[in-house]
Amino acid sequence: MPHIKLPEGLQGIRGPMAFRPQTAKPLNELAEALLHAPNSLPQADRELIATYVSSLNDCYFCQTVHGSIAAACMNDDQGIVRQVKLDFTRADISKKLKALLVIAGKVQKDGKLVTAEDIAAAREHGATDVEIHDAVLIAAAFCMFNRYVDGLDTWQPKDEELYRERGKKTAREGYVTMSREYLPVD
Amino acid sequence: MPHIKLPEGLQGIRGPMAFRPQTAKPLNELAEALLHAPNSLPQADRELIATYVSSLNDCYFCQTVHGSIAAACMNDDQGIVRQVKLDFTRADISKKLKALLVIAGKVQKDGKLVTAEDIAAAREHGATDVEIHDAVLIAAAFCMFNRYVDGLDTWQPKDEELYRERGKKTAREGYVTMSREYLPVD
Repeated sequence: MPHIKLPEGLQGIRGPMAFRPQTAKPLNELAEALLHAPNSLPQADRELIATYVSSLNDCYFCQTVHGSIAAACMNDDQGIVRQVKLDFTRADISKKLKALLVIAGKVQKDGKLVTAEDIAAAREHGATDVEIHDAVLIAAAFCMFNRYVDGLDTWQPKDEELYRERGKKTAREGYVTMSREYLPVD
Repeated sequence: MPHIKLPEGLQGIRGPMAFRPQTAKPLNELAEALLHAPNSLPQADRELIATYVSSLNDCYFCQTVHGSIAAACMNDDQGIVRQVKLDFTRADISKKLKALLVIAGKVQKDGKLVTAEDIAAAREHGATDVEIHDAVLIAAAFCMFNRYVDGLDTWQPKDEELYRERGKKTAREGYVTMSREYLPVD
């Protein structure tokens, strides 16, 4: 049971977002800018960074939601998502994404662990400054989202199928549009 | 030197914010909603939660900025800020804030560590559901801001005086107004 009285029937982060629309608005706009807005970094790659960091933080809701969205961006390939969580160095993903996942994994622990060598490795595989910035901020942002979802003990039903269809819709429509289901429209 | 090429002369988070206005906008709006907007939780208390979590994450820039803002909200009392970072249980702050700092300290490690007893203790000292929600989200958000600032190795000049005057201005004017110095106005 959630630690505070949240609107019923809303999974994970949607409960506290509906409870507190004042903070939900910038949170959804941040997710939209990082994960769904046009970007030279593919949408699947950005969602895989979010999924990987959420798995390191052991947040069931976030890793399942964003894993579903990542899969939806890759012809529903759940295998790549599983492999990224298990050992991304052996996953069928680009060398650039692997280098960004190294950075993201360090940010998840402590931003100060990121070295000039980690950045140089990402650049060698073609990462731009904006892509490096976004990888760092996605990793940092999921250290927030994961703690928000778990710190309030939100409702996280353990049925992956529930997350699949929703993942496809979020991959298409993005975070701000999806939030209209439970947030008052401006 | 920052890991990516950031606009020069901007300390801490302002560098990457000026570099990437698309994400700076929701980040400043989130800080505004949590720390500066009207709230039953005093502004000083909210800034102390931000300062405490930033000190646990060992982020020099964030703990110094938000410590300065917190002090500015308490007649420039730097002593309380120092004591909260050192051992908040002995600080001259309310029992409610102490109970919220216990929750914030757990969220900083892992949201799943927060117990029903921690929440009950906060309620016993008068915390409302919105105040508990906001304490959890402030703690979670600073796990993001700290990692963003340190993960890009931003410029963090080690001179507390630099942060004092700015802290007073931010305490008065808030985050969105202050961001107009380095962000394009909509």
